[in-house]
Parts: sequence; structure tokens; C-alpha cells
Amino acid sequence: MEENSKYIKRCFTLAEKGVGFVSPNPLVGAVIVKDDKVIGEGFHQKYGEAHAEVNAIENSKEDVAGATLFCNLEPCVHDKKQTPPCVPLIIEKKIKKVVISNLDPNPEVNGKGVDALKKIGIDVETGILEEEGKELNKFYFKFISQKQPYITLKLAQSIDGKISASKKEQTWLSGPESKKIVHQFRHSHDVVMVGAKTIRTDNPLLTVREVKGRNPIRVILDGKFLLSHSYKVFNTNSEAETWLIVAENFSGKKKIKSFEARGIKVFPLKSDRDGKINITDILKLLAEQKITSLFVEGGQQVFSQFLEANIWDELFIFQSPRILGQGINSFELNNAVPLKIHEVSKTGDDILFHIIR
Amino acid sequence: MEENSKYIKRCFTLAEKGVGFVSPNPLVGAVIVKDDKVIGEGFHQKYGEAHAEVNAIENSKEDVAGATLFCNLEPCVHDKKQTPPCVPLIIEKKIKKVVISNLDPNPEVNGKGVDALKKIGIDVETGILEEEGKELNKFYFKFISQKQPYITLKLAQSIDGKISASKKEQTWLSGPESKKIVHQFRHSHDVVMVGAKTIRTDNPLLTVREVKGRNPIRVILDGKFLLSHSYKVFNTNSEAETWLIVAENFSGKKKIKSFEARGIKVFPLKSDRDGKINITDILKLLAEQKITSLFVEGGQQVFSQFLEANIWDELFIFQSPRILGQGINSFELNNAVPLKIHEVSKTGDDILFHIIR
Repeated sequence: MEENSKYIKRCFTLAEKGVGFVSPNPLVGAVIVKDDKVIGEGFHQKYGEAHAEVNAIENSKEDVAGATLFCNLEPCVHDKKQTPPCVPLIIEKKIKKVVISNLDPNPEVNGKGVDALKKIGIDVETGILEEEGKELNKFYFKFISQKQPYITLKLAQSIDGKISASKKEQTWLSGPESKKIVHQFRHSHDVVMVGAKTIRTDNPLLTVREVKGRNPIRVILDGKFLLSHSYKVFNTNSEAETWLIVAENFSGKKKIKSFEARGIKVFPLKSDRDGKINITDILKLLAEQKITSLFVEGGQQVFSQFLEANIWDELFIFQSPRILGQGINSFELNNAVPLKIHEVSKTGDDILFHIIR
Repeated sequence: MEENSKYIKRCFTLAEKGVGFVSPNPLVGAVIVKDDKVIGEGFHQKYGEAHAEVNAIENSKEDVAGATLFCNLEPCVHDKKQTPPCVPLIIEKKIKKVVISNLDPNPEVNGKGVDALKKIGIDVETGILEEEGKELNKFYFKFISQKQPYITLKLAQSIDGKISASKKEQTWLSGPESKKIVHQFRHSHDVVMVGAKTIRTDNPLLTVREVKGRNPIRVILDGKFLLSHSYKVFNTNSEAETWLIVAENFSGKKKIKSFEARGIKVFPLKSDRDGKINITDILKLLAEQKITSLFVEGGQQVFSQFLEANIWDELFIFQSPRILGQGINSFELNNAVPLKIHEVSKTGDDILFHIIR
């Protein structure tokens, strides 16, 4: 049993190497063990490319016949995808036993992979470190089961709950260590999202610079479609994709075209009279675009909308060691929101609250 | 050397038993050691009563002649006080050696006690765990050296920096564990202070109920002298003393008398036209009244005044795990205040920030 946990943990570690590159696929790692010796390892490296099991088999230094395959997710059996299914390969290669952490929640697989293996006489164990496996693939699990991206909110505020000292310009509130964590989050999420006001006051790039990683798609919420295309996010298309979500009844064809001419994708959605778009409509759009994870970086209105709709998964609040004593509140809500604080830690001089809904 | 630290630490532990009862005197513990054995212990138990050294000598099971006296503060030599000085007693009892943590900052003693002991041929060592000794007696050291009470600010807020959801009524923001810590602070400080608005919205008792201890003097700041005497603090005189600080030009003799008739001490101080009294004038008044420590519990205006004046020593912020999203800000300042966060810890469900200026 301890052996199972050890190799499944190794699968998790391998799987994590795919963070940022495999979405909307899950993170998967695979280890092949024969005579108590690892003979092959692999992970799913990039969306559209080979699965972890295939890579592990190909990387094996010995014949895999009679070996045990460890894999954090159930091997696939369906062919509704870009690469051939893994189960037939496992059978063909005469793998003797398969040990799995999670069944694939995808209804095309969900248990069918295990059934197919068992039917042919392959020994299968499931549920090893199940919770850790679900945590690793929390984006995928939510996306598949709820048809919504996993939502991580992040804000930097002063100890007295201000995200900026003034409406007009940015107050830089977090230290270099916190910035690194934020860039790591950008790398791991499919999309980074901010509202129009954040673009106007901070003019951020929203790319990954402080750590090694790939840039997420930048999604800008601008219901009233008031932003000009002078901002950085609209002029750095070669670095990262930018999408603009606007209210249908605030969007003229000409303006849309002027953004599209710069390579920006514009998505008009229905809204209320003030150009406010329902969060669920935004999430529906993103899910249709195969976005499994959303990193929301501001500002007050966007945070407040997610909290009021009660649609979010995790909230990270970086508290900068200062009292601003005036400025923009982190949130403006009609009703208080009780929170479950999962962890409080120091990152440089900042205090990081990790909150799970 | 390790022996010295061990017995001085024991002095600290003994001294702490005097917390809440010896002010404006310092906290002092004494240990008498003969042939590597503790033969007597004592501490300063109550203002006006015997000093630690005297108690330790009196409690000794053996003759103290030839013994070593450990004491966290320099023995006194002056007689400008309620009890006879300790140095002559030490000499009379033929104590051989005296080991001290801190010299007494009081100019009536400061080194003179040590000199008198040395002069008679008694061996004296000083400076053992000096910083810990100063920390233990931080109220006394500040009071003596700066002629101002030590100031501890405490607030309970939501994670988004609100001390209340509404102007009109109290929002209960901290859990039972935090409440205990607050009551412990009330016990250890000479005075607990709040502004008139806190009295009006919370109608607090400001006594020590959650832990064993003595009640501090309750000082209410009401520049404009608008409070009626219907509130709890003005009707529980048998439990704790209440002082009222008001602006001179807002205070009629008749109203003062009506409070005095209830046993409330009223202190009229000069103010600006709006009845705002300078913090330094308040501190001067308190120092004249021999108040060595001040525990400030609210509200927004009082906190902000202390922060703007930059006159405070420690700040404790209890953050309740919720977002209020509206309400009263913890502070209203014209300028941001950078902070040094000394420690962040959990107390029940709350997160406690301990900040030292």
C-alpha cells in the first residue's frame, strides 16, 4: 500500500510539469514499475500531444510486459479526441496491473477505462490518494462536472482593506515575493481577468515575467465598452492573446472592428441597462471557449460581483504592511460574506490569506 | 552565566504576578540563592506594599547572610516613596552578591543602588537578560523616560478593514478566544480608553470578565461632551473607576457636576473649535495622574488620531474571517502609515496582527 502511495505521488509530481500547457486536458503523470524498479516515466506535456501513459511506455528502458502502470487519472478509452486512447495500448503492451488515483470525471471515460482493463484480466486498483489527485486536477474536475471554469480571486490590499489610495493611479501594494506568487498563478490558469477600471488605473501587461511560464489569455471586462486601444494589453498581442468582453447594447460594429484589427477577440454579451453583464453569462462564454480556470485580478467591482454572485472557488488576499487610511475599498457589497480561512502565511513583508469557499 | 539567566528568568516569572496591581511601580521579582539552592522568593505584589527584595528576604527559609540575591530591577536606594529603601536591608542582612537584569531608569535610583552596594563590598552583576527585562517593564521604562504612558491600540475588523457594518449599532467582530486576549490586556493596562461614538454604538462595560484580573480605569473621550449619563460605563462605578475627558469650551459646570455626582471624574482640556483635543494633552493629563499604560479600544476617530500623531507603541488588529463590504472604516487618515508586523497568529477563527511601531 505504501508503495502505491509512493508511485502515485511521483505521478503527481510528473503531472505538475504539465501545468499551464495541457488545459483543457487534465494534468496526468505515469510511472511504470517492474520488479520494484521504475522502468519508465512520462507525463502529459502539451494539449494535443501524447498522454502520460503513452510517454511512460515509450520512455521505458525495459519491456513493459508484466509491469505495473501507475497513473493519477484513469486511462482513456474513447476516441473523441486528438490522440488514440490509452487502454488498447496498455492491453497491447501486456501491462499486468494498473494503479490509479482518480477515475476520470469525463462521462466519456468515467469508469469505462477501468472496466475495459478489468475485462481483459488486468488487475486494477483505484482511489489511491484520491483527494490529493482531485486537488491537483481541481480545474479539470470543476470544469467537467460543473461546466464552469475554476475561479481564483486575488487581491492585494492594505491592512485596512484598501486596494488603492486613489481612484486615479495605482498604489503598488505587494512586495516582490508576492508578485512571484501572482505570476505563478497567471502561469497556471488559462485566463487572467480584470475589469476596465484596473486597465485604466494600472495599465497592466498581465503577462508572466517573474517566473518561468506561459502567458494566460488576458480577458478584459468592459461592459460599457469605454476603453480605447491605447492600453498595453491591447498592444502586446505577440506576447499574449487578449479578449474583450463587452455589453451587446454598448458595442458598435465599428469599435469592435477596430479592436479586432489589432488581433483582439471581442465578445459582446447581453447586459442590464448600465452595461453590467451577469457573471454566469461570462462563465458560460468562457466554458464554451474551453477555459477551465480563471484568475481574477481586479478591481473592486469585479471582485464584488463574484462575491455577491457567490461564484468563486479560492480567494487569495495579500495584505501589505501599511494602513492607507483612505482610498478604494477592496469590496463594495450589500451583504457580508463569512469566510473560511484555509491558511495565513508570510510572503516577504506581506501577509497572505488563503481562503477556500 | 547560565545560572544567572536561570534565576533572572525566575525573577521575571515572579514579577509578572504583579501585573495589574503595582503600577506606577515596576514589575519586580527576587530570588535568593545559597549553595546553589533557592532559599527565598518574592515579588512586588501591590503598589504601596513591600518590594520584591523585602518579600524574598522575609520568605527565606534559611539565613540569607552570604547568599546571592537575584532581582530583575536594581534595588532602590531612595526614600521618596511609601516603603523604606531596599539597599540598606540587603546590607544589613549580609547578602554577599546581587545579580540584576536592569538598572532602574528612575533618576532617583539609576546606578545609585548598584554604587551603594559595591561601596560596601557587595559583588554586583548587571545586564543579565537586559532586553527581556526591559520588555517586561516596557510600561515603566516608557513612563519614566518619556513621561508618557505606554500606548497599546487594539481593534477588531473584518478582513476588508471595517470595524462595523453600520454607524448605528455594533457589529460583533471577534471570537471568544480574541475576547479573552482583549480582557487580559484590560487587566494589564492602567487605563482602557474609548471615544464617545464607541460608547454610543456599543455601550460597553470595558471591565475584565473573560479572565481573572482587576478592572482598569475607564477613560472616555468626549470632546463635545455630548454623552448622557445613561451608558453602562457611567453607572457601574462600583466595578471600575470612570474618567471623562471633555473639551473645556464644551463643558458647562452643571453637566460636569451631574457626572461628578455619579462618581465620574471629569477632566476638561483645551481643544480646537470642534472640540478636538490634542493627543499630547490627553497623554500629559494621564501621565500627571500616574497612568503608565493606556489600552485604546476605539473607535475610528480615536485610532486615527493616535496614528496621525504617530504616538503609539503597539497595535493589535484582530481580523474576523468575513468581508463586510460596507460600513465604518478602521481608520480615516490623510497619509498612509507603513507598519512593522511583528507577528501574525491565529486566535480561534480570527487572525491577530501584532504590530510594533
